[in-house]
Order: sequence, then C-alpha cells, then structure tokens
Amino acid sequence: MLRNLLMTLSYDGTRYFGFQTQPDGNTVQDQLEAAIRQLTGEEVKIHGSGRTDAGVHARGQTFHFQTSSQIPVERWRHALNGRLPYDIRITDAVEVPLEFHSRRSAKRKTYRYSINGNRVFDVFEQPYQLHHPGYLDVMAMREGLAYLIGTHDYTSFASRHSTKQSHVRTIYEARIEVDPGKEGAGSHEQGIIHIYITGNGFLQHMVRIIVGTLLQVGEGKRLPEEMGRILEAKDRAAAGPTAESKGLMLWKVEYNELRDFLAVSDNTLS
Amino acid sequence: MLRNLLMTLSYDGTRYFGFQTQPDGNTVQDQLEAAIRQLTGEEVKIHGSGRTDAGVHARGQTFHFQTSSQIPVERWRHALNGRLPYDIRITDAVEVPLEFHSRRSAKRKTYRYSINGNRVFDVFEQPYQLHHPGYLDVMAMREGLAYLIGTHDYTSFASRHSTKQSHVRTIYEARIEVDPGKEGAGSHEQGIIHIYITGNGFLQHMVRIIVGTLLQVGEGKRLPEEMGRILEAKDRAAAGPTAESKGLMLWKVEYNELRDFLAVSDNTLS
Repeated sequence: MLRNLLMTLSYDGTRYFGFQTQPDGNTVQDQLEAAIRQLTGEEVKIHGSGRTDAGVHARGQTFHFQTSSQIPVERWRHALNGRLPYDIRITDAVEVPLEFHSRRSAKRKTYRYSINGNRVFDVFEQPYQLHHPGYLDVMAMREGLAYLIGTHDYTSFASRHSTKQSHVRTIYEARIEVDPGKEGAGSHEQGIIHIYITGNGFLQHMVRIIVGTLLQVGEGKRLPEEMGRILEAKDRAAAGPTAESKGLMLWKVEYNELRDFLAVSDNTLS
Repeated sequence: MLRNLLMTLSYDGTRYFGFQTQPDGNTVQDQLEAAIRQLTGEEVKIHGSGRTDAGVHARGQTFHFQTSSQIPVERWRHALNGRLPYDIRITDAVEVPLEFHSRRSAKRKTYRYSINGNRVFDVFEQPYQLHHPGYLDVMAMREGLAYLIGTHDYTSFASRHSTKQSHVRTIYEARIEVDPGKEGAGSHEQGIIHIYITGNGFLQHMVRIIVGTLLQVGEGKRLPEEMGRILEAKDRAAAGPTAESKGLMLWKVEYNELRDFLAVSDNTLS
C-alpha cells in the first residue's frame, strides 16, 4: 500500500547547489533521495515545498514523497539521519493523505534574512549572515518594508529568469528584529538585524532582491517611500541588487492543522 | 620603539590542530603569525593566554606580542582580519605596558561547554555542541558541579600528560544554564545545556574531564556527591571520560581594568 510522508528538515546550504536536483550535481534533494534509496531500496522522487538557491539555508524546509515501505513513520527520522551527511537533518516525519502536496498544500512560508551590523563578523555565524558594518537606518528599513505587505505583482522583486506566469503573490507579514548583540559591544555595534517575511509563495530571488533594495534604504541611498514606487514599476531594473545568498534561511512552511486537512480530505472521499 | 599589543580574537577551531604552534602544522597561532608577518615584515612570536586543544573554539581568546611597527593600534584589527582566514577574527586590539603578559596578567578565564539535549541536533550548531539526546538530570549536574568550586588540587580532572608542577587551581564560579530551545520543540526536548566554569587557570583537558564526569551524574550513573570524592582521590582514574572537544569554547579572559594595570605599572616604574 502506497503511503505519503511529509518530512521537515534543516540544512546548512553552504556545500550544496541548492535544494532541487539539477544537472550540475550536489543538491540537498540528491542527498535525501540517496538516503531513502539506501533505506528502502526504492527509487523515490521527493517534492520540496520550494527551491532554495545555492548557499541558502533552511531551518524548516519540507518535502513529501510516496513510498510502499512499511517502516513505521516514527522510525524514519532516525533511520534517514543515520544515512545523511552532517549538514542535513530530518527534524520531523508524519504520514499525510495521498493528495497532500508539500508545496501546493502550504498556506504560509516564512524566510529570514540576517545581517550582521557589527564591526567584526562573528566567526560562528559568518556562513549565515551578510556582514554590513556600515550604518543602517533600521527605522527607515522598517518603513520601506511595510510598503510590500499585501497582495501585489512583485515583478520588480523577481529574477528576470522567473518562468512563472503570474508574479502576483501575497505578503502577510514582514518585520525586522534587532538582536543587540554581544556583551561588551562598542558604540558602533548595530547588532544582528533579522528580516522576517511571510507570504503565500515567493518568486525566484524575491527575498534577496527585497533585502538588497532595503539595504539601500538603510544606507540612505533611497527613501523608504520608493519601495512603493518600485513595486508599481513592475520592472526588475527599478529595484536594488540581489543580496548574497548566505544570509537567507527558509524559516518555516505552515500548513492547515493536519486535523483540518484530514477532515477536508475525508469530506472529499465521502 | 618596541610596543606591546594585546589582541582579543574569536576562532572556529574545527579546521585547526589547536591554538599553539606544534610540529604537525596548521594552528591558529601559525595563522596569526603569518598575518603579522605579511602586514609588518616582522617575524613575531605571539603569546596566547593559554592553549586550546584541536577542535576547541574561542569566543574571547587573547594573545600579546611585541612589535616595532608604528601602525596605530586602532588599525591593526582591520589590517590583520584582511590577512586571516574566514574562521579567525581579531575583535579588539589595545596597546599595553611592555611587562603585560596575556597569560600571566590574566585574572580569570571562563570556558563554556555546550550540550544539545534535543532529539535532533541543530545543523547550524553541530560543530559547537556535543549531542546528547538521552535524558540528563540537570539538577543533579548542578549539585555535582558545586563540589568543584574553591581552591583544590584538580589532579583527578587533569590529563595524565599534564606537565604542570602544581595541580592546585581556583574555580571561582561554575553554573549551568539551559536554553529551552526552539519553538515547537516536543516533550522529549531538553534544550541546550551550557556549562560555564570560571577559574584562575585550567589544567590540560580539565573542563572536558569535568564535563565527561558530570554527564555520568546527569545520566544517573554517579551520585552528585561523588564529585567531591573524585576531587579528594587526586587520581585521573577516579573521574569520568574526557568529553569531545567540539562542545568546548574559551569564552573570555579577564584582566584587571587596564586603568588599574597602568596605575600598578606606573607605581612599579616610579
């Protein structure tokens, strides 16, 4: 009997060419499929909730796949982790209805982008933060970010290589949190600036282009209200540069309560 | 004119054979001396506040060295960081009296040992934490740790290879802090357990042997009060195993206020 499993995982993207399988090789998906093959002997294709670019990390990525293996669901996490490299960890595994899809069933996705605003970067965090020791006006960045909330055509904040038919997405929430940083930090220390953006889906490079543009607002090169005009322009050239991938992390993917989902799927079946 | 510089640095010890130069090669000290040579042309020998073993990290290690370079002290940090690998960062540089010595002038050193007590380790923290998903009785560990505070002969908690004449040291403070961990953590999650130990100096492997023994207390294999008896035995065989190096971090090295030091050294000179 075929079963559908939904797994949550974390990975350090530093060593990988992104999440999704591609001709050039070493991706997180390749590692996951190899681990499943080792465990079950099955040639399985997994489906991620979305791609992440080379060098982008994930705290709460999800994927699903169908298997005829009868290994109980509570055993999968441990069994796969024993077959995965140290920088990829399954954190949760649940069985879901066959029609459940990690991307199409997702309700909200949150990304976090982290900027180290201190003079010296932290050696333990440097693979996960953009280093920006120059002054940033965080209040102006907050003001600029607010223009992006809502349902809009985000063409200005999408890669020119985007192949999506529609660039309309909804950003539900966007906020900036500042962690004032370490004990003994000097007066020029800005701490760690985390930008969280939650939406129903994201276009290629969308978060990184938003951050690259917000950095220009923080540097005083653009006014906060330009964010609204950039959005209206529907032109990639209107926005700022694409921020480095290493500061980006897929923070979480949210679904309806599985209980609700099962209720809906029971209705569908009845 | 010869000057004496005191620098503070962080490093990720994963790639290094410890802090101090040794025949087998790649150490943090080698990297620092090479960067100073590149900057000044001088063949300088630096003096660290203490060794750290292979794989041990530092948030606030210190070292001093003498130089005839006239580069202003406020320029050194940036100049050296530009010549150091990504996993070593100078965080501070100050000029000190010629008789100042990073190790001999140190008043207090603090180490931190970190244990991940959650089911799944965190991919972003795994190079810096011991993973121990099995149950740990943290209250018992706290009780056991308290026996070590004070001035004692720590032979039981020192490597058999220690070459020090005296194993008497003073532990001023020792405490365990538990970071309850991530949002959504399940009921079996113990969070991150940080053990901080502050003393006037530490013997080879001392913190790691203390932690290895405390873990046995946490696992219920030893009673907390055994810590006192182990100390009295003055025998390495009485204690537990040496905990893995990767969980250990040299947290900070404290000196008298430089103001006080300068006052003392002025007195000495007058």
